Amino acid sequence: MRVELVNTGTELLLGDTVNTNAAWIGQRLAALGVQVQRQTIVPDGAVIRVAIAEAAQRADVVLVSGGLGPTNDDLTRESTAELLSLPLELDDGVMAHLHDYFSKRGKPVSEATKRQAMVPRGAQVMPNPCGSAPGLYLPATLGGFLGWNAHIFLLPGPPRELEPMFKNEVEPHLRAWLPDGASRRVLYLKVTGVGESDIVEAVEKRLECVPGLDLGYCIRKGDVDVRLSGGESNVNAGAGIVREAFGDCIVSEDRRIIEEVIVQLLAERGEQVTTAESCTGGTIASRITDVSGSSHVFGHGWVTYANEAKQQQLGVPLTLIEKHGAVSQEVARAMAEGALNNSGADHALAVTGIAGPAGGTAEKPVGTVWIAQASKLAETWTVRRFFPGMRDRFKLLTSQAALDLLRRRLCGLKPRA
Amino acid sequence: MRVELVNTGTELLLGDTVNTNAAWIGQRLAALGVQVQRQTIVPDGAVIRVAIAEAAQRADVVLVSGGLGPTNDDLTRESTAELLSLPLELDDGVMAHLHDYFSKRGKPVSEATKRQAMVPRGAQVMPNPCGSAPGLYLPATLGGFLGWNAHIFLLPGPPRELEPMFKNEVEPHLRAWLPDGASRRVLYLKVTGVGESDIVEAVEKRLECVPGLDLGYCIRKGDVDVRLSGGESNVNAGAGIVREAFGDCIVSEDRRIIEEVIVQLLAERGEQVTTAESCTGGTIASRITDVSGSSHVFGHGWVTYANEAKQQQLGVPLTLIEKHGAVSQEVARAMAEGALNNSGADHALAVTGIAGPAGGTAEKPVGTVWIAQASKLAETWTVRRFFPGMRDRFKLLTSQAALDLLRRRLCGLKPRA
Repeated sequence: MRVELVNTGTELLLGDTVNTNAAWIGQRLAALGVQVQRQTIVPDGAVIRVAIAEAAQRADVVLVSGGLGPTNDDLTRESTAELLSLPLELDDGVMAHLHDYFSKRGKPVSEATKRQAMVPRGAQVMPNPCGSAPGLYLPATLGGFLGWNAHIFLLPGPPRELEPMFKNEVEPHLRAWLPDGASRRVLYLKVTGVGESDIVEAVEKRLECVPGLDLGYCIRKGDVDVRLSGGESNVNAGAGIVREAFGDCIVSEDRRIIEEVIVQLLAERGEQVTTAESCTGGTIASRITDVSGSSHVFGHGWVTYANEAKQQQLGVPLTLIEKHGAVSQEVARAMAEGALNNSGADHALAVTGIAGPAGGTAEKPVGTVWIAQASKLAETWTVRRFFPGMRDRFKLLTSQAALDLLRRRLCGLKPRA
Repeated sequence: MRVELVNTGTELLLGDTVNTNAAWIGQRLAALGVQVQRQTIVPDGAVIRVAIAEAAQRADVVLVSGGLGPTNDDLTRESTAELLSLPLELDDGVMAHLHDYFSKRGKPVSEATKRQAMVPRGAQVMPNPCGSAPGLYLPATLGGFLGWNAHIFLLPGPPRELEPMFKNEVEPHLRAWLPDGASRRVLYLKVTGVGESDIVEAVEKRLECVPGLDLGYCIRKGDVDVRLSGGESNVNAGAGIVREAFGDCIVSEDRRIIEEVIVQLLAERGEQVTTAESCTGGTIASRITDVSGSSHVFGHGWVTYANEAKQQQLGVPLTLIEKHGAVSQEVARAMAEGALNNSGADHALAVTGIAGPAGGTAEKPVGTVWIAQASKLAETWTVRRFFPGMRDRFKLLTSQAALDLLRRRLCGLKPRA
């Protein structure tokens, strides 16, 4: 199946908006085993007509996003109707949706907005529960007189409108048209603490031997999502290979990120975690509290950048800091145990390291970090890690490694060497 | 000047990588007064040839990114040479760079990598200080025999290689070709605490009256960057209009974000700030410590999600919480003043609110937050804000509003109403 994307929007060409729709649709299609053959981005306006026509000549499916709104430069609907010589007709269902949508917001339906109820004859309306402009599906037969054989889908530009419409309205068509579309499955194994190149080296050759298995890697927030798609049994075979190689590094198989996994594990046990952060400066606490419901499992956290803060807030003896340095196994351990005691939580995470760019030495270069994990009635774990490079990446990878240490504790695993 | 972008890379079409290069280049060109007329994204491989040829027929400048690496599917260099019927010749300068680049990394130059030293006859090498593959500039004259009039630039795909090369090697050409390129100036006024639509309403009509002034808005991390570009005097006139309307909401005029501005202001004064965060859960501390050098101005921070933490760590009386609720002016004030006293810092920020999705009431719906700013020898400020919506957005906007309160204190301004 040859699929092309046409994204419209002057804001995309000016760089004011990053084109996340293209990546999102690309991932959804990859999961179906389809690779987009071309994306074209054009400004709002008449050129959309040219871009759609060119794509329709080359492809079986053309996915268009943007330009369905009420303003003068939203011309996707009109341009497509013109291309296919279809009259625009008022659709009562869409008009009722518009009245409903705006009356809920205490506004009348403006004259400009009424254009959104005009539907090219023969097109099918795709409802938009999250916005005012409906999507439109123009079956390939409508372009047959031009020698085209492309199904055209017109989708709204805002991601929160496009994404549910794509899932609910477009994907069922694509699945029906793909030979194995209905039975196709996609699985994301989220692997943490292992680099993409190590994953490739360990499993790619074996995965490539599984017939009918599509494979991809998506790196995000310190993790690598290994994407397996294909028939049920092939995906299962592939997942077995990845689990065998990286079992205890797999955070989730449903795209949940590590902080979501941890909050759920803690909530199930009725336990709490506390944090004592030096070099990550609140990043670990911020990630945990990004998760809805985290207030049940997280009550106290400290950011102790200064040595005095480590002493006053966590009870780390200044002599310990003087003897071993603030970035040391001993201080990390004392921070974690101090936080555990002072908070009354069941588990504690502590980090102390050198985020840089200044502060490194030959013995402890920028990027060096000690992470400690303390739990009631258990031996405290400490690990040393080295994440050289940019400051933001250091904070991300350090927080990721700390959260993974807690995940391993909660799952009954051991720390990674 | 008609400019087109051609981005190559299968990872872009699979959605594994978001196309940030396109947005970055779009912004740089917008600053020069140029709007990209089309972007085309194609997979690695032979189709790159088609995409470049089509763009070169339509445009004056074609910017190509990706496909210059050492692997078999990196075909941009070869495809372009073939299109323009140019022989590829070994370039001694590039070869010396490759030897230098890899010897620094303790590796030999592989046979595959040597392809990167092959240069189409007549092309100019653009050095790549951040990577191995050089860029190539093919002047428009090389395509004249095909009836084209397009300058073609081949750039590497990784942003950290592409960005400096674009600034140092491509932009000087573009400036020379633009009628007012050399004298053109761009200014970003970063406005915080004001929505884009309010900015548009207040200044857009007046800005549109300034002749030769290009205007754009870029929304990022809770701020709006108002982009003014054009001749020096026109940009100054435009900036005057924006300053008059939003003077004390302008965080910076050099793209520095608010945490950078605050760290610098504090460092200049030799002062420190501390944080006491409930609903933002460490986000404010994390943002401050994102800034290199923040260890001089930030030593202690607390995340006090639980009421007991507010009491134990910050000395907020439980009776105060019981009387007014944890989300109240009184508790925010007590948190800030407690953090100030317990840390010895010169300034404190405290926030307490309802991030949601649970926990809202009719009187204090989800999104309600109280922010307090306390400083030594000064009256404590408290403000109530309302940021309904998603949890991550609530945390971002609340941290932004808190940081802005501190900026206002440090700049001798008043809190916004």
